[in-house]
Amino acid sequence: MDFVISKAKIEKGENAIICDKDALSGIKKIAAKLSGDMEAVFGSAPKLLEERTADSPIYVGIVGDALIAELGVDTTDIEGKREVYKIEVIEDALVITGSDKRGAIYGMFKLSEMLGVSPFIDWLDVKPAGMTEFSIPSDYCMISKEPSVKFRGFFINDEWPAFGNFCNKRFGGFNAKVYEHVFELLLRLKGNYLWPAMWSAIFPDDGPGLDNAILADELGVIMGMSHHEPCLRQGEEYKYLRGKDSIYGDAWNFLTNEEGITRFWEDGLKRSGKFENVITVGMRGEADTAIMGEEATLKDNIDLLRKVLATQNRLIKENLNENLDEVPRMLALYKEVEPYFYGDENTKGLMDDPELEGVTLMLCDDNHGNLRTVPTEEMRNHKGGYGMYYHFDYHGLPVSFEWFNTSHLSKVWEQMTTAYDFGIRDLWIVNVGDIFSNEYPLGYFLDLAYDFDRFGTSNPDSAKEYTKLIVESNFKGKLAASDMKKCEELLEGYTRITSSRRTEAMNDKVYAPFAYNEAFDTLAETEKLMADADALLNKLEGNTRFVFYELIWLPLTANLNVQRMWLLTTLNHGFAEQGSTYAMTLGKKIDECIAYDRKIVDELHTIEDGKWYGMGLSEHIGFNDWCEEGCKYPVVHTFEPANKERLIVSVKGSDFYTEGKFWTGHVGAVDAFLNPSNDEAELILSTAGRVDCSYKVENPNPFFEISEEEGVVKPYTLKALKIRLDREKYEKTNVTPEICIHCSDGNVVIKLPVNTTADIGCGEKADGTFYWLGKTLDMNEKMIDAPLHKRTWPGKLGLMNYISIDAANYTDKTDSAKGGFKVIEDYSRGLDAVKAYPQDIIFGTDEKDCPKLTYKVKVPSEGDYKVKLYVNPSNPYSRDNVIFFGIGANGEKMQKINMIESDFAVGDGNPYWSLVVTENKRVVEVCLKLKAGINEINVYAVDPNFVVQKLVINKAGEELLPSYLGPKETFRF
Amino acid sequence: MDFVISKAKIEKGENAIICDKDALSGIKKIAAKLSGDMEAVFGSAPKLLEERTADSPIYVGIVGDALIAELGVDTTDIEGKREVYKIEVIEDALVITGSDKRGAIYGMFKLSEMLGVSPFIDWLDVKPAGMTEFSIPSDYCMISKEPSVKFRGFFINDEWPAFGNFCNKRFGGFNAKVYEHVFELLLRLKGNYLWPAMWSAIFPDDGPGLDNAILADELGVIMGMSHHEPCLRQGEEYKYLRGKDSIYGDAWNFLTNEEGITRFWEDGLKRSGKFENVITVGMRGEADTAIMGEEATLKDNIDLLRKVLATQNRLIKENLNENLDEVPRMLALYKEVEPYFYGDENTKGLMDDPELEGVTLMLCDDNHGNLRTVPTEEMRNHKGGYGMYYHFDYHGLPVSFEWFNTSHLSKVWEQMTTAYDFGIRDLWIVNVGDIFSNEYPLGYFLDLAYDFDRFGTSNPDSAKEYTKLIVESNFKGKLAASDMKKCEELLEGYTRITSSRRTEAMNDKVYAPFAYNEAFDTLAETEKLMADADALLNKLEGNTRFVFYELIWLPLTANLNVQRMWLLTTLNHGFAEQGSTYAMTLGKKIDECIAYDRKIVDELHTIEDGKWYGMGLSEHIGFNDWCEEGCKYPVVHTFEPANKERLIVSVKGSDFYTEGKFWTGHVGAVDAFLNPSNDEAELILSTAGRVDCSYKVENPNPFFEISEEEGVVKPYTLKALKIRLDREKYEKTNVTPEICIHCSDGNVVIKLPVNTTADIGCGEKADGTFYWLGKTLDMNEKMIDAPLHKRTWPGKLGLMNYISIDAANYTDKTDSAKGGFKVIEDYSRGLDAVKAYPQDIIFGTDEKDCPKLTYKVKVPSEGDYKVKLYVNPSNPYSRDNVIFFGIGANGEKMQKINMIESDFAVGDGNPYWSLVVTENKRVVEVCLKLKAGINEINVYAVDPNFVVQKLVINKAGEELLPSYLGPKETFRF
Repeated sequence: MDFVISKAKIEKGENAIICDKDALSGIKKIAAKLSGDMEAVFGSAPKLLEERTADSPIYVGIVGDALIAELGVDTTDIEGKREVYKIEVIEDALVITGSDKRGAIYGMFKLSEMLGVSPFIDWLDVKPAGMTEFSIPSDYCMISKEPSVKFRGFFINDEWPAFGNFCNKRFGGFNAKVYEHVFELLLRLKGNYLWPAMWSAIFPDDGPGLDNAILADELGVIMGMSHHEPCLRQGEEYKYLRGKDSIYGDAWNFLTNEEGITRFWEDGLKRSGKFENVITVGMRGEADTAIMGEEATLKDNIDLLRKVLATQNRLIKENLNENLDEVPRMLALYKEVEPYFYGDENTKGLMDDPELEGVTLMLCDDNHGNLRTVPTEEMRNHKGGYGMYYHFDYHGLPVSFEWFNTSHLSKVWEQMTTAYDFGIRDLWIVNVGDIFSNEYPLGYFLDLAYDFDRFGTSNPDSAKEYTKLIVESNFKGKLAASDMKKCEELLEGYTRITSSRRTEAMNDKVYAPFAYNEAFDTLAETEKLMADADALLNKLEGNTRFVFYELIWLPLTANLNVQRMWLLTTLNHGFAEQGSTYAMTLGKKIDECIAYDRKIVDELHTIEDGKWYGMGLSEHIGFNDWCEEGCKYPVVHTFEPANKERLIVSVKGSDFYTEGKFWTGHVGAVDAFLNPSNDEAELILSTAGRVDCSYKVENPNPFFEISEEEGVVKPYTLKALKIRLDREKYEKTNVTPEICIHCSDGNVVIKLPVNTTADIGCGEKADGTFYWLGKTLDMNEKMIDAPLHKRTWPGKLGLMNYISIDAANYTDKTDSAKGGFKVIEDYSRGLDAVKAYPQDIIFGTDEKDCPKLTYKVKVPSEGDYKVKLYVNPSNPYSRDNVIFFGIGANGEKMQKINMIESDFAVGDGNPYWSLVVTENKRVVEVCLKLKAGINEINVYAVDPNFVVQKLVINKAGEELLPSYLGPKETFRF
Repeated sequence: MDFVISKAKIEKGENAIICDKDALSGIKKIAAKLSGDMEAVFGSAPKLLEERTADSPIYVGIVGDALIAELGVDTTDIEGKREVYKIEVIEDALVITGSDKRGAIYGMFKLSEMLGVSPFIDWLDVKPAGMTEFSIPSDYCMISKEPSVKFRGFFINDEWPAFGNFCNKRFGGFNAKVYEHVFELLLRLKGNYLWPAMWSAIFPDDGPGLDNAILADELGVIMGMSHHEPCLRQGEEYKYLRGKDSIYGDAWNFLTNEEGITRFWEDGLKRSGKFENVITVGMRGEADTAIMGEEATLKDNIDLLRKVLATQNRLIKENLNENLDEVPRMLALYKEVEPYFYGDENTKGLMDDPELEGVTLMLCDDNHGNLRTVPTEEMRNHKGGYGMYYHFDYHGLPVSFEWFNTSHLSKVWEQMTTAYDFGIRDLWIVNVGDIFSNEYPLGYFLDLAYDFDRFGTSNPDSAKEYTKLIVESNFKGKLAASDMKKCEELLEGYTRITSSRRTEAMNDKVYAPFAYNEAFDTLAETEKLMADADALLNKLEGNTRFVFYELIWLPLTANLNVQRMWLLTTLNHGFAEQGSTYAMTLGKKIDECIAYDRKIVDELHTIEDGKWYGMGLSEHIGFNDWCEEGCKYPVVHTFEPANKERLIVSVKGSDFYTEGKFWTGHVGAVDAFLNPSNDEAELILSTAGRVDCSYKVENPNPFFEISEEEGVVKPYTLKALKIRLDREKYEKTNVTPEICIHCSDGNVVIKLPVNTTADIGCGEKADGTFYWLGKTLDMNEKMIDAPLHKRTWPGKLGLMNYISIDAANYTDKTDSAKGGFKVIEDYSRGLDAVKAYPQDIIFGTDEKDCPKLTYKVKVPSEGDYKVKLYVNPSNPYSRDNVIFFGIGANGEKMQKINMIESDFAVGDGNPYWSLVVTENKRVVEVCLKLKAGINEINVYAVDPNFVVQKLVINKAGEELLPSYLGPKETFRF
């Protein structure tokens, strides 16, 4: 008989949730939450009982419970496993058996999930769609897998002003009332591990008292403390307790105050050691700084840290457990601690030190989502294993990101699967700042940690799949399928924009205002996403609307409004530089964005009775430093327009503009028709004065169609003058086609060179070759005799003097015996990437061992060419400052290139690192000799962490227009 | 009996001006002007007669006139001389005898001058002060000198839109009506030579017909044509006459249209050759361009030019005078013609070519007031001599200067005396653009050319003297002496500002907004001059007011308003960058400047019934190119202020600013008290938000007095917080004195290190040594324990890490047998200069021969030091690309340094030249090894054209704050 849950049955007293009367209180508490979930689904809450009183009960227990034994559950397949549950129908009952407490809890939440309950039911108030009846087949029996990563959790950090104000206003402090929500969120997301807020809070004292710690332990949440808070005591607590007459002394200094510090730690272990913890060991300075001054030697530091570790291990043994192996301990190899671990050639580091045996070594990303050093093969069998501290939020150099979510899942997938493949499987913790708005990547991070088989390396669609999943788990049954699809697009879309540049790091100097049209294109993408999000929000009502607002609309709109504001500022500065009155129109739009930003934050702070008050408080605009000092709204550029009829003509996608005045004789050129697959070009017309400008196009070419041959450009506006090329009518002559825009006191000659496939020497059969489209124009040849003193080209002459290739569009792919390249879709910056797998091996220096990608390119002449590779800003995977890859042309031997700058170092102030993490890209330049005609450029994987997105090829000695994203892909056939 | 002129006598018919009835009509016309001048002075016009009818007549004639002979004038001492006059009292008559026509004319204007008539009486409507009686002693007899330079004149150029519109509106074209005023101006200024306007005009055809040429000849004005208009025909005329069926052909090309061009020239000579001319020979391309294309070789060009010259000489012989020596001819060695003249090692140039015998070779400045190549000693005896084409106005790269006068006399003196000393004495012509507003430097230029003995090399006060003279000649008897002094200050003052940067070349990026306070200081200087000019204008009435307006107020105010606008823009951008709301206040002031600029131009165009309509029409703001294409008003930076109490503290004279926030921990420092002679420093307080900011200064130092220890800073304002050091009270401690400005959420710690004379090791006796004042501060030492995460220095650490020396303040001067350095006061950029004299010799490479200046400097440590010399952007005096000077420390051998960049070339597009002429300075960097303690730095003159204004010394490898003027002079004792 199927096991059925329904409103009717619940109302009859059936479907009761039965825990043994001796069951752990945490299990009972979660059972109550399950009951609440069921009430949300069915409209009626099942009873919580200790004994069966009606049909169709739901039993919950753990292996070894008398109740479970009585029910005849076969627990052999889950016994001794970590956090596993078995859900089966036994006669008329549903039985949820945990291999341990968390197993049972996850089992209960699994049932909720099956009933359509979102893991965010509590945290984001997601009401389930509801159902009247839910059946489980009579032969149902599922056993969960052991979670892939042992400790999986998040870190509430950088919690002022947002999370802190939120806690104070809504809960009266960082107490158990708020932590109950946090714990529930963690557990529903299948996490088990938490680092509490620590800027101003004292977790073991804010409950009030021990309430926070007690509740965590009850619910099965394993507590850690941040990487620099050893022995279960927080830095804030030392600040609070220290003093001249304090028993803990008055210096966070193990050299001068060993006794006080030791006592401080010992009391911490005594107080909180009885709970489930991962105990941080080691020591850093106060407030996340180095422990010793700059004058200390490496050896001084290592010796000190060794002494600290010995003391801490002794204290743990004496106070908690003689068997240290049974006490989860963690040492963070963070910032300056990393060198202490590795030492140098003269000084042995802490690696393999007996004091670290069994201690989980926590490695870190670079705070900006790129792994740092990973364990070498020899290191991987370290007892205690490895952990990873990752960031979805960061307060520090070069620019903090603390406001709303900016993390894009594909890169998280690539990075964290790399970590896993390198053996980092014992502890994953992610900094989620204020939690709020980071639910999307957080849910993914914890799902990935929980079920690596499903979401890990083997699943290249992992990020997409999770996005679908989070939309379904929150909107299924409430939104139409097409709207759910739209939700996925919105989540992917806004994080794609922020993957190009995080919001706080945006400014007016990021995107080029005109080159390759990147600012306008990104602006259009941004505005489309905002409009789509608005449209969907406006369709929705009630709780569905609110959940859409929280999960999608708000992080999307709040981020993109700021991104848009900066793009408008870039354009404002660009058009002001041109002297175009459109700058002033952009200035007004910027003001609107600022007002909208305030409105968004105000609304967040008042919506649903101020539930989220505080969560929008972080500074997020105009950082001039890594933090808010000196931050300011965009500087808007305006000027007094001329009182004359002055027309400005610019070419879309280039930085060319002119008024076509006699003396300067500036002539423009459009490169759009050099691409044989393109038939449309655009000129942008605006005014330098406050009066209307009339213009008239002289177009002697029958094959060009001009969108508006004669007209008026209004001040403060742009007019797009579209030029269509009718390739059927096109006939080549000796003179490059020209048009001229005649206006008051100006004659703007624009050359429009055309390439046909024949011109560029296309082969007959498409084979994925990239063709050189470039042309150098002759300024003396004239089709139109406009009155110009002397024709000149005002800027750099370089019409399509490059080939741009999206790396995933390789011509050929050759795997080696060791591995091969794979495409990672939508990796970042709107581009796919290629990366060689397995991702944890060095393919070596023998070309035969190295996976290869081949790009066929046709170039006009023999010579030196620059190849710019746009790669992920990966950090060296080892202590050597290298990531090698290989490159070679036309079968010549592969050159081994180190993509890491020689002065590169991860860390505050390093200019290379600061640049690449802020840009979320690195550009590596290689010189190749190419022959005239078709060349094969081969790119090889040599080392791990080589993730390529784009290749741009141009002649050595020539420059391309500066841009952020680089030129768009050119013609391929 | 004294010769007396008075109103009474004139009314009685006395003081009549008597010319022989056969006298030249030009003399009669000028006699009529003299009569007009006398009417302006005495209120009554003397009669113009051919015979004596009453007492006390004024006779005018030239050597050889029967009349003069009859009067018994001894003409032996003037006979055969050029342009000389004799004025003597003979019995009851005053006799003015010219050695020739112009001599007589200058003699008549000399009498006017003696009567207090300004040379601008006609051009600027200057009414003389007037007198009732004027006596000349009975024994009076003065003989003028021959003018120093043979042909002296100016070029009306770049005449659209200003002069062109002026002519059209007021005179109906470029006709004899306007040229009569121009000729009169030229002659009254003692010039004799004119190049007419030529952009759109045809001098020999616009009179109407030949009237312009006839009038010029009549009045004794020798006509030239511009440097590229040979054989008395203008380019515009060819444009007008050319055509398919034209007898002159249809190509300005001697290769393809030899016949047509030859005929064009021949007809020109036939038409205008009968008048007094300096005939331009040679040929350039149309509209001031090179004649042959880029593909032509040097030899091609030289051969062509030689053929052209031969043809022109033949035509002159055939049509004008068989004896070419009697025909003044001129070839301009301008732009590309210069290399044709010199040739290269493979190709003989035109130098010493027989076709050039007797032709005056016209050399040129670089269009921006710096001489180019001057004749070598061997070249100086070229028959025909040399000319100089100088610019007070220029239409071309890198930035045109065509609006109101920007030339500063001292540099004109230095440059033109150099030209003279190098033997350039036959022809001086200066481009004066629209004439209007350039009267001040033009008058000086012509006085210098006329009387080199008085104003030339021997008179270092020449510029000052002329300034006094022009003020006196226009205001004597009308202004109080103190106001005349003020006029001199105003003339010198505004041109001093424009000598730092010409007005059209000003922009927001010239001056550093904060470094060395240069923007604020220049702004203050500018505003003081404008206020003084306004105050004087407001005191004046009638014609005096109008003349002051024309000659001083307008060019001063129009220029300085624009200079001020850009300085405000620089500061607007600087404060916007800081995030200071004061930026918005500056933005409003910029708008006011723009409105004022329009008002100034409108007033000029309407004043005195629109007399000067057109003269303000040139674009003059925001050049983005050399000409007006793309020019625009300042881009004003504004931003939305924060809605928080945020105080910004910056240090006057440095680019430091901070809000003193916890995380960044920025600490500032004031270098003002490192100078032992200074007791005052200033902090600048402003707000980042739109609300009032309260602050309170913590000042634990009894020796500092703070101007306002506690207060409120209003948004949109600056508050200067002055700190006075009481050196009596000052006591040195181990910790650098600090103050802290506490404000909402900010704690700005400012370190104020103090130097006493003892600290810097001053000697007992002042000997003109410059002392090192620099200090590097220790960020760890604290006097004030402000809550800052970690104290950091946000910018470059370099407190007074330099010594700055005004070159004229040398410690010692050592002349050699060959010459010695002299000071040129107020040379440019507000600084004096030093230059070695004689200025036309190479002192050579033997140290003993080289004039020397010694600067004693005390530095803290041994090592490499950079010496930056700020020198005039002189061009190489010879064809070699060099100007050598010498430098050496402490008696070591002089290093010979070439101050010219190796890739330097005078000319369009050369980046070095473009930079130095725009900045009117060159910075030459030399490395010297200095010892700890006192050093002697010796600077030697080796080559001509080495003009030094400033030396800045700092340690190799250290950088100074970027600035335009460089750091101000440091402490000297």
